[in-house]
Amino acid sequence: MAFAAEGDGPSAATLDMGLNALWIMVAAILVLLMQGGFILLETGSTRMKNAGHVAGKTIFTVGLVSLVYWAVGYGFAFGGDASESLNKFIGIGNFFFDPTIVAADGESYPSTIFFVFQLAFAAVSLSIAWGGFAERAKLSVYLIFTLVFGSVIYPVIAHWIWGGGWLAEDGSQDYAGSTVVHLTGAMAALAATILLKPRIGKYNKDGSANEILGHNQVFTSLAVLLLWVGWFGFNAGSAVAVGDGFFGYVAFTTQLGAAGGAVAALLISWLVKGKADIGVTLNGALAGLVAITASCAYVEPWASVVIGLIAGVLVFLSQAFFEKIKVDDPIAAMSVHGAAGVWGTLANGFFAAPALVEQVGVGKEGLFYGGGGHQLWVQFESVVVCGAFAFAASFIVLWIIKQIIGLRVTEEQEIIGLDLSEHGNYGYPEALKKSGTASL
Amino acid sequence: MAFAAEGDGPSAATLDMGLNALWIMVAAILVLLMQGGFILLETGSTRMKNAGHVAGKTIFTVGLVSLVYWAVGYGFAFGGDASESLNKFIGIGNFFFDPTIVAADGESYPSTIFFVFQLAFAAVSLSIAWGGFAERAKLSVYLIFTLVFGSVIYPVIAHWIWGGGWLAEDGSQDYAGSTVVHLTGAMAALAATILLKPRIGKYNKDGSANEILGHNQVFTSLAVLLLWVGWFGFNAGSAVAVGDGFFGYVAFTTQLGAAGGAVAALLISWLVKGKADIGVTLNGALAGLVAITASCAYVEPWASVVIGLIAGVLVFLSQAFFEKIKVDDPIAAMSVHGAAGVWGTLANGFFAAPALVEQVGVGKEGLFYGGGGHQLWVQFESVVVCGAFAFAASFIVLWIIKQIIGLRVTEEQEIIGLDLSEHGNYGYPEALKKSGTASL
Amino acid sequence: MAFAAEGDGPSAATLDMGLNALWIMVAAILVLLMQGGFILLETGSTRMKNAGHVAGKTIFTVGLVSLVYWAVGYGFAFGGDASESLNKFIGIGNFFFDPTIVAADGESYPSTIFFVFQLAFAAVSLSIAWGGFAERAKLSVYLIFTLVFGSVIYPVIAHWIWGGGWLAEDGSQDYAGSTVVHLTGAMAALAATILLKPRIGKYNKDGSANEILGHNQVFTSLAVLLLWVGWFGFNAGSAVAVGDGFFGYVAFTTQLGAAGGAVAALLISWLVKGKADIGVTLNGALAGLVAITASCAYVEPWASVVIGLIAGVLVFLSQAFFEKIKVDDPIAAMSVHGAAGVWGTLANGFFAAPALVEQVGVGKEGLFYGGGGHQLWVQFESVVVCGAFAFAASFIVLWIIKQIIGLRVTEEQEIIGLDLSEHGNYGYPEALKKSGTASL
Repeated sequence: MAFAAEGDGPSAATLDMGLNALWIMVAAILVLLMQGGFILLETGSTRMKNAGHVAGKTIFTVGLVSLVYWAVGYGFAFGGDASESLNKFIGIGNFFFDPTIVAADGESYPSTIFFVFQLAFAAVSLSIAWGGFAERAKLSVYLIFTLVFGSVIYPVIAHWIWGGGWLAEDGSQDYAGSTVVHLTGAMAALAATILLKPRIGKYNKDGSANEILGHNQVFTSLAVLLLWVGWFGFNAGSAVAVGDGFFGYVAFTTQLGAAGGAVAALLISWLVKGKADIGVTLNGALAGLVAITASCAYVEPWASVVIGLIAGVLVFLSQAFFEKIKVDDPIAAMSVHGAAGVWGTLANGFFAAPALVEQVGVGKEGLFYGGGGHQLWVQFESVVVCGAFAFAASFIVLWIIKQIIGLRVTEEQEIIGLDLSEHGNYGYPEALKKSGTASL
Repeated sequence: MAFAAEGDGPSAATLDMGLNALWIMVAAILVLLMQGGFILLETGSTRMKNAGHVAGKTIFTVGLVSLVYWAVGYGFAFGGDASESLNKFIGIGNFFFDPTIVAADGESYPSTIFFVFQLAFAAVSLSIAWGGFAERAKLSVYLIFTLVFGSVIYPVIAHWIWGGGWLAEDGSQDYAGSTVVHLTGAMAALAATILLKPRIGKYNKDGSANEILGHNQVFTSLAVLLLWVGWFGFNAGSAVAVGDGFFGYVAFTTQLGAAGGAVAALLISWLVKGKADIGVTLNGALAGLVAITASCAYVEPWASVVIGLIAGVLVFLSQAFFEKIKVDDPIAAMSVHGAAGVWGTLANGFFAAPALVEQVGVGKEGLFYGGGGHQLWVQFESVVVCGAFAFAASFIVLWIIKQIIGLRVTEEQEIIGLDLSEHGNYGYPEALKKSGTASL
Repeated sequence: MAFAAEGDGPSAATLDMGLNALWIMVAAILVLLMQGGFILLETGSTRMKNAGHVAGKTIFTVGLVSLVYWAVGYGFAFGGDASESLNKFIGIGNFFFDPTIVAADGESYPSTIFFVFQLAFAAVSLSIAWGGFAERAKLSVYLIFTLVFGSVIYPVIAHWIWGGGWLAEDGSQDYAGSTVVHLTGAMAALAATILLKPRIGKYNKDGSANEILGHNQVFTSLAVLLLWVGWFGFNAGSAVAVGDGFFGYVAFTTQLGAAGGAVAALLISWLVKGKADIGVTLNGALAGLVAITASCAYVEPWASVVIGLIAGVLVFLSQAFFEKIKVDDPIAAMSVHGAAGVWGTLANGFFAAPALVEQVGVGKEGLFYGGGGHQLWVQFESVVVCGAFAFAASFIVLWIIKQIIGLRVTEEQEIIGLDLSEHGNYGYPEALKKSGTASL
């Protein structure tokens, strides 16, 4: 069928915009679906007495961060004119975002859809942070921290790398946010868990650690699957275009990275501990996904597998490390999103391949392709600067909250569980009433 | 790359049709995914002894309503020629729907996909209705009511507003079905719960109410997330076009409405009851979504937030109201889908903005934009007429069933639970056998 | 808006490729989401003491099969030049698949996305096979069998029918894999369950069978919903094109087939057993989906309903049959995927309609449309040959594993459950510790 020179139907530019709009919309929906993964991951990794609290607060904070990001955060991340000098450090503009109702002429997608997509990323970063708060923070702390994280902490980092900020100018390669989303969330979690201190019963007087098992591995397994599925929106959606089909390449390497992580983590735990640990396997898949997030568009297929495999081993070692230094990390946020986030970002410095760097148009090739240490340095800089900022900002905010209203529920409340203490009812009333009291 | 005047590849019209087809397909899939939300919402809000029944009947009734809607319902909703006078009240045609296998010339999407999309809406309305039947209706009642609701009750209302019927002619603004889908389902639920009477143990002899807690807030939280995600198909899919990207605007306001509902409901319950109720928060998110469903395409961003916030407060008050007047509503269908559905529909009468009304091309601007009371009256008319019809029709059908075979299981069956009485096995055999008997 | 003869924007061919790319991407994501269905279906159908193992091994094996299929399987399924004679039986080429990063000129979709789509099918077939391993196979057996099934067994059959192999040349009609995916998986499950022998406690000394109930029907119900939703990617995605919207027709018949299966299964179990069995109803929906998978693109709407209804009855009879001949099939894989897979494939031999056969361009019309027995014979051949190959290959591999390392855990391990024996912790530590020991 030939194109009619004067046919009916929209222009090629409009159709192209429509394709992009549709893909980014689907991707945004997939990234929002990841919150279902976080609900299941966080509840499954914690105890029955806190399940309603943990699950329900996700819905609340997704709601709250949406309003905050709309009012302020999006403007700090993407607002204003990138040519102004202030704009290297923070965006200014588009507060209380009021977009055109259809795509403006020349736009490659409607800004409404870009907003929803970006908002979904902010919400993921926030849900990662909650890992460090789990099973002992007050509900009011969730509320206040959402306001600060969603309005300033996350948007500033997003601006530096994705909003035309100073790291973008340096050619920082973080395709879908190993650093921007995952490391930022993990650093906030780290600040929280340091200030909150470990959960009651986590460490013995002699310094040895107890394993506080989560209550439901069906939930955590399904969580990983939902996150894995949602990650195609996260990574391949970050192409923000259909064009010549490059987003498919990103999905392809994403699948390989995730697979590598799951396989390596199961095998390493089997080898070292004599048992193939389910929790480690699940975290391995997630670590593979987190690691490939920065590099998915820059590396060859074999390198994706390698990046995933290393992430799977790394998450196992990292979990042991944090347990040893007495950082109580119930959802393994520091390992899955922190350690693997750092690894994934740095991996570009080694594996970024010339043809792919040219395709994306950001930064330079990595050490293994003759690029020398240049890109590795830029990646290192991004990790250090963003990690430090996210940690410091989160720490200061939480420290202030701690001084004023306190971060943690009382010992008694923690023991009976946050479902009762913060919300007045168990999330599992039949299961927990039956046994008289909740287990510690 | 310039368009070749005589290139290969399909025409612009075909590509445009393809874009629409793809988006409506995705949207239909998302709306069907909402049934996963209903499975979790309804089981999580009820007791363990009924969980298998509640979950399994959703799969059965989705199947049954698909056949009924295919055979009859779609024809009553969208069949026939809209210019005939009978056709103002009911569609006639396309029974046992047998569509062309590809999009016909000039069609903006294939009718096959439109059918699946519309069917998914009918199934959502039906699943809302089940809220009023929960934990005490016979399985056979579900079967019979599905036949009537899917063939006549829902299709008639869909025809009035979306099928070119008399409310469409009046300019009724119900973009994605606050009235057509949600209020209709809620009115059927109301009729059912009135005829069924409250569950054993819900009310004391002195008239005071007991809280019958649902058994799993992880399920209800995940339910809300799945529904929220599916709602992008529901609302933005109702654009039934990609075009200039307006469907993105609809997704954007949908997110703001949902967020407003979740935040307001948590805060109001915290303020009033001293505890932030998880169930209320979850219902607040849903109420925000229900309310923005009618108005998502007609209102400005700030108004979306306001509509959501009000819906969140409303759902809290409405739940208290229905409890007080002794309407036992286990899944809060009357409040989430009824009260918020009414509010969302009326909201257009206040907030519909001229530029958006022009974009959609239905009705007139609202009171706050100088439109006077005209649109508010049309919206009020829609709510009253559709609500009354849905309630009356459902009440009559259920009343007849009640006279002939009865609606409710025996007291003994209700106490041991519907899993055993209707299906012969517990849905949770290990958990319930262990404790000897199910809890009341 | 008229097409500018020399406008900006991509060519019609590029836009068409983009549409296809987007739809296949969405479909691939949906098929991967089906693994969430398998996690829930398999855990819900088995006992609490094995839940973590069953759920977690799905994530691991999805990871492992991804690597294996990338390295080897895809090359055997789709590699090489279809004109070579060896190539009628196995593909050779594209090992360690290293695709072009964007769609090459003239390609109707990027090969990256096609790869992810095909990989997702392989993973589904594998997850079906696990039904026969459930609750007693060693973890190491899962690992080894994944390597063989993902590299050879599945790819060979995929090549025969979809990769230009000898059954493709015969005009075998298996649109989305009733045979390729479902029967293949079911035959592997059959081989496994025969070699593993029934679970402890399944059969009494007098030969009578005990019902070993699964522990969670909310999981199995949600599983069916997720699989149902994912199936739109499975079936309609198999169009691998948007084009004139034919993929919508496929989605339409898919919905009707699923609906028929659910309705018929509930009714037949109600009639025969006096109780409407939830498990049978759920399997009925799945059987409808499995059956319509081969025929979705070839049959008229009424025939889809009939195919689904028959599948629903068939699954009920088949489950009783396998129970009687002492094949212990915990997840009903032989009935849902085996019996219904055979039925769906054969159904084309009866119901394939001329206009649809012409649209798809494979094979001939069925018996009921004057095609005589030709297509029925081709379908019968496909079922027999593929079923026999899948069974024999799986049996041999598993028999060898059995001789070398054994397939089954010890009696003691099976009694305490695979969560403890294979992984060191319960998947539900709080629920199972409470009751002292897990139930048998």
